[in-house]
Amino acid sequence: MNGSGTAPAVPRPAYRRLSVEQRRSQLLGAALGLFAQRAPEDVSLDDVATAAEVSRPLVYRYFPGGKQQLYEAALRSAAEDLERCFAEPQSGPLTQRLSRALDRYLTFVDGHDTGFSALLQGGSVVATSRTSAIVDQVRRAAAEQILRHLGEPEPGPRLRTAVRMWITAVEGASLIWLDGGKQPPLDELRDGLVDHFIALLAATAARDAQTARVTRAALALETPDGPVGDLVRRLLPVVRDASHLL
Amino acid sequence: MNGSGTAPAVPRPAYRRLSVEQRRSQLLGAALGLFAQRAPEDVSLDDVATAAEVSRPLVYRYFPGGKQQLYEAALRSAAEDLERCFAEPQSGPLTQRLSRALDRYLTFVDGHDTGFSALLQGGSVVATSRTSAIVDQVRRAAAEQILRHLGEPEPGPRLRTAVRMWITAVEGASLIWLDGGKQPPLDELRDGLVDHFIALLAATAARDAQTARVTRAALALETPDGPVGDLVRRLLPVVRDASHLL
Repeated sequence: MNGSGTAPAVPRPAYRRLSVEQRRSQLLGAALGLFAQRAPEDVSLDDVATAAEVSRPLVYRYFPGGKQQLYEAALRSAAEDLERCFAEPQSGPLTQRLSRALDRYLTFVDGHDTGFSALLQGGSVVATSRTSAIVDQVRRAAAEQILRHLGEPEPGPRLRTAVRMWITAVEGASLIWLDGGKQPPLDELRDGLVDHFIALLAATAARDAQTARVTRAALALETPDGPVGDLVRRLLPVVRDASHLL
Repeated sequence: MNGSGTAPAVPRPAYRRLSVEQRRSQLLGAALGLFAQRAPEDVSLDDVATAAEVSRPLVYRYFPGGKQQLYEAALRSAAEDLERCFAEPQSGPLTQRLSRALDRYLTFVDGHDTGFSALLQGGSVVATSRTSAIVDQVRRAAAEQILRHLGEPEPGPRLRTAVRMWITAVEGASLIWLDGGKQPPLDELRDGLVDHFIALLAATAARDAQTARVTRAALALETPDGPVGDLVRRLLPVVRDASHLL
């Protein structure tokens, strides 16, 4: 589009020199890019070769097990990225830490889109007990991170269940969000999920002494301008007329 | 084990006379009984014949598509049973209706055990986009029922998402419950899920005018001895020290 004449073509080397690890990671990156846009069964090794601008034999050399091997390797790589999202220093109000980790998680969901939905909605031809195990491991890692932040060295079943239920609900909300054209905006979804965490923790605290202890300790670190203060102030007018329940 | 001698064998007719529908339903019942105890891939048509005490050719006549057809038919039948669990008259406090429906749902989960886990955990060889669609339909039906009980003719996205998130969390909690040897007892799990619903609705009400309206109307129907009054009274000591947030 820049007027007359043709710019001299700059010759591009057929292959950049990459180490085995770098090449593998490049191919997985290309595969994840494709999985983000199409169902896993619609991504072939040839598509990956095209996307990564490498030869087909090269891709087949790295993934001799074909599509299934590629899918599982891409999933493993995505799972590692995802587990890194959860890492967060143990300081400051809990809701701030949760909010930051959720931001990274939702950005991941946003970027992986179709692949994320296909993986979690099930029914995919590439889903196996191995792929389920990888996903379960991510869920477990997320739960362990949260429990570590709650500072309870030996979390009991009620606290564990509350945390795992929230993780399940976050997954569900992510799928609904993707399905609904990514509305509301990511930060609104994130804030709603933080509120949901507070609410679930409080509901569990009402019946479980350990969760009550953890919740009290977490509330002590919160600030009035943070999400808990905001939630409580917004909630007061809703429950104002419910004094007959006390 | 009843001492000496042999009781004369009572001849049992090889086949009871059943209509096509009755026979089909008998075979599906036998299949669901097997799926409740074993992974779907470990249930063969021969096993169904043995369990239903009919001949193998009979089972093959009803399910010429083999194992996959049997599995999908059993799933459809289970889905219908499940949707019936959700039906509940529109009167009385909302938490009472929810509690009754949850009771039926959890009794279903209890009775279908392994089949329920295998279905929702994914990675099963019999999972297809059709089986996912059946499960999704059940989730949608559950959400519609709850929204109907909330009495909002045109539920907006935030209220819808809250309800769907709760359904996802209930599913997650059911799987955790089965995985953990059905502890805590069913009624304790049920009460916790009702509390979770109240908490999630309240958290959503804090940010959404429609949900706030629905929540206020629901609270007005609750009684002091019901789950909301109980939850609020148990929660007060937990939040007592958090006045710095107001």
